[in-house]
Amino acid sequence: MQFLDIHDNNFEANFAAILARGEETGKEVEQVVLDIIAAVRKEGDAALLDYTRRFDRLEADTVADLEVTEAEFNEAFVRVADADISALKLAVERVARFHEKQKQETWLSTDESDVLLGQMVTPLERVGIYVPGGKASYPSSVIMNAVPAKVAGVGEVVMVAPTPGGEINHHVLVAARLSGVDRVFRIGGAQAVAALAYGTAMVPRVDKITGPGNIYVATAKKLVFGQVGIDMIAGPSEILVINDGSGNPAHIAADLLSQAEHDELASSILITTSRSFGERVAAEVELQLGKLKRESIARKSWDTYGAVIVAGSIAEAIAFSNRIAPEHLELAVTDPFAILPQIRNAGAIFLGHFTPEAAGDYLAGPNHTLPTGGTARFFSPLSVDDFIKKSSIVYFSESGLNRLGKDIVRIAELEGLEAHGKSVSIRLK
Amino acid sequence: MQFLDIHDNNFEANFAAILARGEETGKEVEQVVLDIIAAVRKEGDAALLDYTRRFDRLEADTVADLEVTEAEFNEAFVRVADADISALKLAVERVARFHEKQKQETWLSTDESDVLLGQMVTPLERVGIYVPGGKASYPSSVIMNAVPAKVAGVGEVVMVAPTPGGEINHHVLVAARLSGVDRVFRIGGAQAVAALAYGTAMVPRVDKITGPGNIYVATAKKLVFGQVGIDMIAGPSEILVINDGSGNPAHIAADLLSQAEHDELASSILITTSRSFGERVAAEVELQLGKLKRESIARKSWDTYGAVIVAGSIAEAIAFSNRIAPEHLELAVTDPFAILPQIRNAGAIFLGHFTPEAAGDYLAGPNHTLPTGGTARFFSPLSVDDFIKKSSIVYFSESGLNRLGKDIVRIAELEGLEAHGKSVSIRLK
Repeated sequence: MQFLDIHDNNFEANFAAILARGEETGKEVEQVVLDIIAAVRKEGDAALLDYTRRFDRLEADTVADLEVTEAEFNEAFVRVADADISALKLAVERVARFHEKQKQETWLSTDESDVLLGQMVTPLERVGIYVPGGKASYPSSVIMNAVPAKVAGVGEVVMVAPTPGGEINHHVLVAARLSGVDRVFRIGGAQAVAALAYGTAMVPRVDKITGPGNIYVATAKKLVFGQVGIDMIAGPSEILVINDGSGNPAHIAADLLSQAEHDELASSILITTSRSFGERVAAEVELQLGKLKRESIARKSWDTYGAVIVAGSIAEAIAFSNRIAPEHLELAVTDPFAILPQIRNAGAIFLGHFTPEAAGDYLAGPNHTLPTGGTARFFSPLSVDDFIKKSSIVYFSESGLNRLGKDIVRIAELEGLEAHGKSVSIRLK
Repeated sequence: MQFLDIHDNNFEANFAAILARGEETGKEVEQVVLDIIAAVRKEGDAALLDYTRRFDRLEADTVADLEVTEAEFNEAFVRVADADISALKLAVERVARFHEKQKQETWLSTDESDVLLGQMVTPLERVGIYVPGGKASYPSSVIMNAVPAKVAGVGEVVMVAPTPGGEINHHVLVAARLSGVDRVFRIGGAQAVAALAYGTAMVPRVDKITGPGNIYVATAKKLVFGQVGIDMIAGPSEILVINDGSGNPAHIAADLLSQAEHDELASSILITTSRSFGERVAAEVELQLGKLKRESIARKSWDTYGAVIVAGSIAEAIAFSNRIAPEHLELAVTDPFAILPQIRNAGAIFLGHFTPEAAGDYLAGPNHTLPTGGTARFFSPLSVDDFIKKSSIVYFSESGLNRLGKDIVRIAELEGLEAHGKSVSIRLK
């Protein structure tokens, strides 16, 4: 962890090391993924079965055997504790309620008597959700991807989740069922992404693929982008806490550690106007670290990418935050709403002393899939917007075209596109 | 041109040749672009000047000398005909008025007495617009990219446009000024994209790059994606006309040719329920082709990627259209609004017999930057949405966290993320 003062001469240089995270895709990974995609496009289900056998140590005669059955869903509901089911149900309900508010309507403008213009909103027809297998398999990920798709009105939600060695995560299946996922295949990796992008005999082609995955999955998504839509390109997670000296240092320390336990590449930063508060938080982090189950991950993250920064004023802290555009931003100050409108770039903003970022991870309602690594400058949280598309609507009556036609022809001609002009002039009186 | 019947046994095979358009990015192009990006990141303005000298045959001492001056703008307004200026002004006004309706509001939900949830909408701070140089330099492109950005509230719009041999397009400068572009640099190619993505001493770093370009520009945009936002990946243009036998074959022929004149890779397709209407359109295309200035381009496009398809019913034509998800879709039928809600995938929809697609290219109001090559399945027209981003807002009061905290901790624990749970439980009573 670095303890920095924003006014130090070497602040920028010291802080640069914290910003320089993230994995570069190696050329070898890209070639492996290109080969897998080519094989799935060419051989379809046969390639899919072959890769699943090799990478996930899972034998099956047909890809149909890899689809999760009704019996397996039932088994999952038996295995999962009732309290877990009801917590996941609450999450689904709250996430659905929030995302309902994001729905946009088709509109038609009647401002002009002879021209109608509008925008039609339609859901994507079929989407694929990637859910990582093994230890990083989180039911909350299923909810955060599937629920916005269903709220948007997507016709069919197909989920893929590898089950290495055949091990299936029952919580994930429960979350899939509660979220309205239509079909689940036990496949993963670049081969699952390729199958969703191009379709095979068993796996239907989708219009968009969302969800987190390892470097092979992320690379595959990037490579099939354009053939299908994808969600944002996510990097390691991060939190920035802005503090004015108010609040409980132990609470802030716990928030910083909730981010640090994710991943050794995660970054947790406190920027405070109070040096002594910052010192107390740093001490609390040390204290709490020793008691964590995931201590080694959290310690590595905090040591390498953690920071406590002393700022001269809240305005300075906000300017810093706007510059780094954090994924998660906590406004741990006395009057958080007073500074909210000054925040320009952030994935999700958590206000006040009783809103730990973890609340947003599960069931506050907003999505937990957020832009990382400064991309909140231009990316938005995953939302219903990701599962719809728009079409422009243009209607000219004869009088509308007569009224506007001359100027259309004029622009067509100055651009040297004569046939464009003719398609209008041929209709003019 | 192929004259096909949708019920022919070999329809799918014959039609596949028309769908298989588009340029694959060669590995050599990618390597050239990677080298240019690396040079601009390392050497900044010096590299930019060097490439501009070599590729655009344009000498300058500093990049500052490559910024378009007030005198050059004034000169442009003198050189351009008044009727052209007023046509471009009308386009800017109408495009602005349409895009105003796309603006979204920040909202806050007060459904619960102890929790506030919302979504904050903020404009991007700075965007870059790429405008091709030379013959493909269109003022309408400037309008369609700059106006939505300004309507969204973007702080600064930076335009780059190469001027090969020093030749500057006055219409483009007029359009830039009328659209509210803030700065214009006479640079282009992958080097301009790299400068916008990473910033140099003279060219400010932007948050997103939009606008069309050649294969080097498109490849550069794809490679810097993630560092900055980009708009959709555009391929060659296309039009599909759905017809029920009503209307004037000469009009439809003119519409098909307005698309064909763009580019040898452009595709123009008519699907009609009337074989005789289809035959008359095909004959009309031949007649009109011979009179076009851009005959050779249009003929090549029509010969290779043109088609007249006879369908058994309008329902069949619509199903076909939804499958190919055309960039431009004309509903050249007697009652176009009756079938509008059945259209699922299309970039822009032009209704009735007096709405040639060319109207939408310039000044109807909607954007002419549209998803191509079937990507209307998941991409939307360029819009104000592309120039804003959203942040989630989460506020829990103490009672809100006490009410929901237990379930948050439950999910954190079932996911094995203990520190997430602790950040909540440490605050609970």
